[in-house]
Amino acid sequence: MKVIIVGGVAGGASAAARARRLSETAEILLVERGPDISFANCGMPYYIGGEIVDRQKLLVVTPERLQQRYRINVRTHSEVESIDRVTRTVRIREIVSGKSYVESYDRLILATGAAPLRPPLPGLDLPGVHTLRHLDDMDRIRAATDECCRDVVVVGGGFIGLELVENLSRRGARCTILDLNEQLLPPFDREMAQQIRQELERHGITVRLQDSVTGFSRENERLQVQLRSGSVLAADLAILGIGVKPEHQLAVQAGLAIGARGGIQVNAQMQTSDPQIYAVGDVVETQDFLFGGPTQIPLAGPANRQGRMAADHIFGRDVHYRGTQGTAVLRIFDKTAACTGWSEKLLQRHGIAYRKTYIHPAQHASYYPGAEPMTLKLLFAPDNGRILGAQGIGGAGVDKRIDVLAMAIQGRMTVYDLEQAELAYSPQYGSAKDPINMLGFVASEMLRGAHEQITAEELAGLPSNTRLLDVRTATEYAAGHLPGAINLPVDELRDRLNELPVDQPLVTYCQVGQRGYLAQRLLKQRGYHVRNLSGGFKTYELMELPIEH
Amino acid sequence: MKVIIVGGVAGGASAAARARRLSETAEILLVERGPDISFANCGMPYYIGGEIVDRQKLLVVTPERLQQRYRINVRTHSEVESIDRVTRTVRIREIVSGKSYVESYDRLILATGAAPLRPPLPGLDLPGVHTLRHLDDMDRIRAATDECCRDVVVVGGGFIGLELVENLSRRGARCTILDLNEQLLPPFDREMAQQIRQELERHGITVRLQDSVTGFSRENERLQVQLRSGSVLAADLAILGIGVKPEHQLAVQAGLAIGARGGIQVNAQMQTSDPQIYAVGDVVETQDFLFGGPTQIPLAGPANRQGRMAADHIFGRDVHYRGTQGTAVLRIFDKTAACTGWSEKLLQRHGIAYRKTYIHPAQHASYYPGAEPMTLKLLFAPDNGRILGAQGIGGAGVDKRIDVLAMAIQGRMTVYDLEQAELAYSPQYGSAKDPINMLGFVASEMLRGAHEQITAEELAGLPSNTRLLDVRTATEYAAGHLPGAINLPVDELRDRLNELPVDQPLVTYCQVGQRGYLAQRLLKQRGYHVRNLSGGFKTYELMELPIEH
Repeated sequence: MKVIIVGGVAGGASAAARARRLSETAEILLVERGPDISFANCGMPYYIGGEIVDRQKLLVVTPERLQQRYRINVRTHSEVESIDRVTRTVRIREIVSGKSYVESYDRLILATGAAPLRPPLPGLDLPGVHTLRHLDDMDRIRAATDECCRDVVVVGGGFIGLELVENLSRRGARCTILDLNEQLLPPFDREMAQQIRQELERHGITVRLQDSVTGFSRENERLQVQLRSGSVLAADLAILGIGVKPEHQLAVQAGLAIGARGGIQVNAQMQTSDPQIYAVGDVVETQDFLFGGPTQIPLAGPANRQGRMAADHIFGRDVHYRGTQGTAVLRIFDKTAACTGWSEKLLQRHGIAYRKTYIHPAQHASYYPGAEPMTLKLLFAPDNGRILGAQGIGGAGVDKRIDVLAMAIQGRMTVYDLEQAELAYSPQYGSAKDPINMLGFVASEMLRGAHEQITAEELAGLPSNTRLLDVRTATEYAAGHLPGAINLPVDELRDRLNELPVDQPLVTYCQVGQRGYLAQRLLKQRGYHVRNLSGGFKTYELMELPIEH
Repeated sequence: MKVIIVGGVAGGASAAARARRLSETAEILLVERGPDISFANCGMPYYIGGEIVDRQKLLVVTPERLQQRYRINVRTHSEVESIDRVTRTVRIREIVSGKSYVESYDRLILATGAAPLRPPLPGLDLPGVHTLRHLDDMDRIRAATDECCRDVVVVGGGFIGLELVENLSRRGARCTILDLNEQLLPPFDREMAQQIRQELERHGITVRLQDSVTGFSRENERLQVQLRSGSVLAADLAILGIGVKPEHQLAVQAGLAIGARGGIQVNAQMQTSDPQIYAVGDVVETQDFLFGGPTQIPLAGPANRQGRMAADHIFGRDVHYRGTQGTAVLRIFDKTAACTGWSEKLLQRHGIAYRKTYIHPAQHASYYPGAEPMTLKLLFAPDNGRILGAQGIGGAGVDKRIDVLAMAIQGRMTVYDLEQAELAYSPQYGSAKDPINMLGFVASEMLRGAHEQITAEELAGLPSNTRLLDVRTATEYAAGHLPGAINLPVDELRDRLNELPVDQPLVTYCQVGQRGYLAQRLLKQRGYHVRNLSGGFKTYELMELPIEH
């Protein structure tokens, strides 16, 4: 068996090592266009920012190691130019010498990844305009920042863009981040991403949304970044991080099936439309774990596992890739943002029924020092309570809760399972009622009809005679409340019911939802039509809705 | 509906608040013997140690709050003396006045908790000998340490004992911890607890195992702690933390069914043998989540959820407590120890078939600063790969992995699910192949027969002609290896096969198991009978087996 793997980073390197573990006799050839294989591309922003000091650390596995330990024939600086599916051969060009030659294969694995988008903008090739994919891109950006890095414009508010502004700002640069959308971090819903925006601004970063670059020019040794809004930003450095496109050219040339968004189509065994050719990692279109449609999410974890699976299948294993769930995490200065499954806007776009709730717990017992707030958003099915997605933003412990929810999604678990989850509690790590339990409590009670919630978005559609009841203290109320809300603290509510005509619909709210819930319960039992505002005033604020003082 | 709740801490306070949310008309009476309700008992060691500075913080909910906000009739300093099941009444004694009176109930919830064991030892009541249950115990210990706290003996190496030595040592005390068993932390297996012992010793704490106290006396103003081994330890303070026993007296007096270990027996609705009487928290015997037998694990999380469920059932909800899983976590100085499900010794004791594996990953990408090692142990079913238990000890991120595994156990997931788990990765939080995936990779390959492992315990039973193959580098080998092992680095293995007769059984090992696995794969494919040592030399060392230099 002769296996040729095209691309030597996450999926390709995993496939190569796995193939060797499964077969000592196979001939395994790894062809990589660049100088390095298996480098830590997720670490590059932190080398630019100086947190990772030793560049060597980014070289997770060297070609020598793969050759020596795994007997993989590694050919760097080599590009596969074309595939001939009939003769089962590829043409490989040595980039340095320009020579090319033909290699035959029994099985081919395409792990060519995805390249940063470079829209055809004037001045895109000017010095000072960068994208970040390989270590040499990183070196160039690092060198530019070593030299001079007063003003930086990062175009694109996704994961890479945010990592870059955090790191460049750590190097002392004044950073502007631009995004065409009305929010940063597209996998998150807008009100959740709002907290990331605030964190960036708190650290001196300028966030410009709904604006984009129309071109670059140079003037007085500096870049001029022209924006659609008409503004021009002077910068020493501009980095484009507006997304990636699958490097599918080989597959296109070979006539393999390609998805609508450019990813190579594969089955659950990672085979392309030619069963002798596999594809893995950022270059493929996979199935969505939850709803089964095509999806294309560039993530290192799935890429590695797909590489492993392709090798497994080649060597006779029965494998089945379950699809990609979209679990991701990002640190922004002192905050962590993480998500798994579907966002609310994705559910809306696909017309999938859902319910949602927000909570604002601390990561551990509030009586123990260091408790920090987080916001968790849970999306779940209105019929059976199945978990559809979750997003978290806050301090420590956000990644843990999202990982627990990711596992729950994978296990096709429901909000009732969250209610009963038995998680590790001691005051440094959690609470006797963990945030996960709290999500389960709230969501389950919503589905049982015991906790009638209203979302901040739904407030606009309320009948005009609805009364908004702020059940917080007078001090909290005075610091800002919903327009038109009256203040009636929960502790006084039972004694002041005469102030509330029973025929008027009510909405209760407090700071995070808990007192509002109790108020909702006690009013409902007395015959009121009453709903509690999900996530309370804190969520309302994130929605950027009007506040009265 | 009139509900009387006996005991106002975790389960009792949860039941009371929940009952009110479900019914505004119910009469709810909470009877508590002590002065406080709903105090943070898990926080007490950290107040003693000074990490929690404000004592008020430990009072999570005050009687006033429960009265004002929830209209709960709270009676502290009041003890329920007896239950009359025929008339559905309890006799309550006011501790201060000594007066007693009768209250009727429709439903009764027993949440009396568990009391520290106080074996009948001579000198147990001497000044300086303490147990820790209530805030007044905490205050006494704190006062004693404020006054003088040079030498402390803590009896019992469970969770409370370990929290106490950590905190007393932080206060400057010289601490000795004693345990009758051959290991600390009974829910963990011995080789895992070994790392906790090392951490304690690294912080100057004396650990004495397989020894116990036979009595206390006082001499020259100091305690003398007599040990079964014959030693006598001089101490300023001694604290007993050898376990708890359910406070079941009321239930016994009322003739309710009691389990073999003293817990009140309840069904999945938290009803005792009298369906009008519920019991929740540390006083009950529940079902084991995994195997369904009776179990008695005092944990705050289950107590709170059980209290909630008892109230739910009283007010007509359909509830079903799934049983207790035994998820727990502990910080010991710079380490975290966490566990969920069954330990190996418990599986052995019950004759349940299992397999196990160890891994020693870092909590996040090794190329990012701050990567710390952890040891994870996974126990799983040999037939279907169902996860039976997990233990972790290490730096940051141990609690996260155990919570993910706790969720997997709850979802009745398997090692194959761990293989495919899609968890949040960026270099600060995890790895593209998360430790959870790694556990899944190893365990799945074991079940598929592709990765034949041997455990350190099994080494003793090997045929005498077995060769032990250390596939690490010569430097690693020289620093210590298995007795009789020969060194043959994995990178040289393929070229030196002539040194290994194919008819001799082999055991390969490396530092943590990964190189040993590759060696095992490549030898197996060449016809050798070969197994890889689970968790490598690092696990072997934890087993305290002989090492050759």
